[in-house]
Amino acid sequence: MSAPLKVALLGCGTVGGAVLRLLDQQAEDLAARIGRPVEVAGVAVRRPDRHPEVPAHLLTTDAHGLVTRPDVDLVVEVIGGIEPVRSLLLAAFEAGKSVVSANKALLADDGSALHHAAAKAGVDLYYEASVAGAIPLLRPLRESLAGDQLRRVVGIVNGTTNYILSRMAETGAGFTEALAEATELGYAEADPTADVDGFDAAAKAAILASLAFHTEVTAADVYREGISAVTATDVARAAEIGCTVKLLAICERVAPAGEDAEGGDSVAVRVHPAMIPTTHPLAAVGGAFNAVFVEAEAAGQLMFYGQGAGGEPTASAVLGDLVAVARNRAAGVAGPGVTTYAGLPARPIAETPTRYHVSLDVADKPGVLATVAQEFARNGVSIATVRQDGHGDAATLVIVTHSAPDAALSRTVTALREMPAVRAVTSILRVEGLS
Amino acid sequence: MSAPLKVALLGCGTVGGAVLRLLDQQAEDLAARIGRPVEVAGVAVRRPDRHPEVPAHLLTTDAHGLVTRPDVDLVVEVIGGIEPVRSLLLAAFEAGKSVVSANKALLADDGSALHHAAAKAGVDLYYEASVAGAIPLLRPLRESLAGDQLRRVVGIVNGTTNYILSRMAETGAGFTEALAEATELGYAEADPTADVDGFDAAAKAAILASLAFHTEVTAADVYREGISAVTATDVARAAEIGCTVKLLAICERVAPAGEDAEGGDSVAVRVHPAMIPTTHPLAAVGGAFNAVFVEAEAAGQLMFYGQGAGGEPTASAVLGDLVAVARNRAAGVAGPGVTTYAGLPARPIAETPTRYHVSLDVADKPGVLATVAQEFARNGVSIATVRQDGHGDAATLVIVTHSAPDAALSRTVTALREMPAVRAVTSILRVEGLS
Repeated sequence: MSAPLKVALLGCGTVGGAVLRLLDQQAEDLAARIGRPVEVAGVAVRRPDRHPEVPAHLLTTDAHGLVTRPDVDLVVEVIGGIEPVRSLLLAAFEAGKSVVSANKALLADDGSALHHAAAKAGVDLYYEASVAGAIPLLRPLRESLAGDQLRRVVGIVNGTTNYILSRMAETGAGFTEALAEATELGYAEADPTADVDGFDAAAKAAILASLAFHTEVTAADVYREGISAVTATDVARAAEIGCTVKLLAICERVAPAGEDAEGGDSVAVRVHPAMIPTTHPLAAVGGAFNAVFVEAEAAGQLMFYGQGAGGEPTASAVLGDLVAVARNRAAGVAGPGVTTYAGLPARPIAETPTRYHVSLDVADKPGVLATVAQEFARNGVSIATVRQDGHGDAATLVIVTHSAPDAALSRTVTALREMPAVRAVTSILRVEGLS
Repeated sequence: MSAPLKVALLGCGTVGGAVLRLLDQQAEDLAARIGRPVEVAGVAVRRPDRHPEVPAHLLTTDAHGLVTRPDVDLVVEVIGGIEPVRSLLLAAFEAGKSVVSANKALLADDGSALHHAAAKAGVDLYYEASVAGAIPLLRPLRESLAGDQLRRVVGIVNGTTNYILSRMAETGAGFTEALAEATELGYAEADPTADVDGFDAAAKAAILASLAFHTEVTAADVYREGISAVTATDVARAAEIGCTVKLLAICERVAPAGEDAEGGDSVAVRVHPAMIPTTHPLAAVGGAFNAVFVEAEAAGQLMFYGQGAGGEPTASAVLGDLVAVARNRAAGVAGPGVTTYAGLPARPIAETPTRYHVSLDVADKPGVLATVAQEFARNGVSIATVRQDGHGDAATLVIVTHSAPDAALSRTVTALREMPAVRAVTSILRVEGLS
């Protein structure tokens, strides 16, 4: 058997620890699948004294020295964050090393600089673990669906927010209460901002959109709304219309319409809470699971489901990439790079077609519905359904619109708030997945 | 841009027609993704006069001549069946052509001969379209999960039988009636044997098991029971215990137990109808959809869902493979082959652990349950649940067992049939997915 494949590991937290364990447990199988054994060349950490489980001679604080060491073939990066990781990976590429990364933030911040550096060096950059943990998703998008035209990718890609929203639905709790429970149980971090405000999902959406549409999409192109404004009322209203609330990452290829009909397609990428019908396949995705729904021209609807986080599932994705890189090296090639030939423009949220659910408390007298309906019409928003429930001298209107540019919907809601007949706008959420 | 990639198409039925359409519609995108245009070099059919939609100069009846033509780079085979396809593909490999095939029967009959021929010639053999149509499944198994240890692959991989069983559950119809409806609507072929008797699912199970367990598994290794013996009573009994009946393809890596505890793992592959809980993710897979559930050591549970058949979805999978082959050719390599290093023995159904549901009509007198329970115990089968319903001077016993070797369960049922206290065995089906 050939000389071992030497792996430098950057970072040794939950995922890094699992990678080391699996490399050990599956050593024989990996060697058989790759054609040569895998050997850990070194593990770069900040505090070597905190890693008694790693043989001392492997530990180093000199990450740069490790990734450029002549005997290292492959760098596995599970540190996360932008710097110093970006510099380390660029140094690794320059030194001719392939990289397997789980770093969504870095890939979404400026993936194309990394791809270019890898391509220039003739090495691989794989990052299946960066989105939806163990679920094979990036390789299917890059390769299996490479002969198809993707229309939409819609996913539940953040376990923390999915857990919180699931608990809100189950218990009727508000956001703050459900977040407190999630924190206590370890489903949310001490500082939950990245999850709760949608930054994590937005980074993943950027990565998915880039691959799906062969276009450079960064986190800055993604419209982002978190779940902290979702109320118990929103969740209750959703249930009343046969829906459930989920934080969705939505990547769409949008055809030009109206005045733009002359132009080409654009790409709309957004992360926000939305009501989806309980019959939609994504509605049943509970707790910390992830799922991604894909619509392609020829393949039709596909769904990928599995564990979106955790040490072992993420490590499984890392090792899958490791095997791929090793096989490429054995063949003396780099795998197919990422193509961005389509270069589709990003569509701002204001011009992106969406649908709204709006619940209003209104005075219960004749003509109120007409006044409200007029306001929608004035903004060019067509109403799909209205339900009117009287209670005492007040009534509730529950309105679901047809698809319209987000700005038009947003203007309508602003106007409704100022209408004398409207006592309160009690719930507004976008709606997805209705036919 | 480089010289075109020249493709020979073998067969031009539903899938072949869709391949030609998509090659035309997506010509620009494919060229951008591959780095060179794709050109159809020829289409081999039996009756050229039946294909007015194909330019006449491309049509030929000489398939062998076409696959060995010096200008052809890649052969796409969508004829199906064993011969003459096997000979044609071997000739193609020998002539240095890569092959993309949708042919499950051929791959399951003797895939390893084809893999060896491809490896010897240094070319690719891809066949994503052979299992579960458009669902990216084989590439995830071969590549994404290559760093993990698979335990189980359980799938609904035949749309015709899934449609029939879904209709039986919805309408209370028997098998014959539901089959007649499926035939009338075009969901079942005039000769439905391949689907209804489980041959189609067994071929797919063999392909899945080979990839999942790095072991040569052929259709002959697969235990196979179709759905023609499933009765309306079976379906009703399933509903009573919170289950639904599905035709499952089950590929398992089984650890040795009992007397064999010294031996190593083996592979059990089987296709049969089974009751699964309605809460199981596979239970909701209706009509002509396919879904495959995967359990891996580190990745945990994964599910892949989508359209399992049809021209366009299958063509999407073919074109994904075509892009992969083209990229490999551009890099001057063949993709990673299939590994069979594990060489795990096939476990016969008799020794495979399964669970049974058994419904009995028995005399309603004291001691019957004890007698019946004794028979299970005598065969070493442990009972999980029993429900006893009296009606008149007869009673019904509904028994769900724990896991036991299939032969022990089968012996038990034979003995029960001969027991004076048992008036009739009204329903027997295996049960899967219960915790």
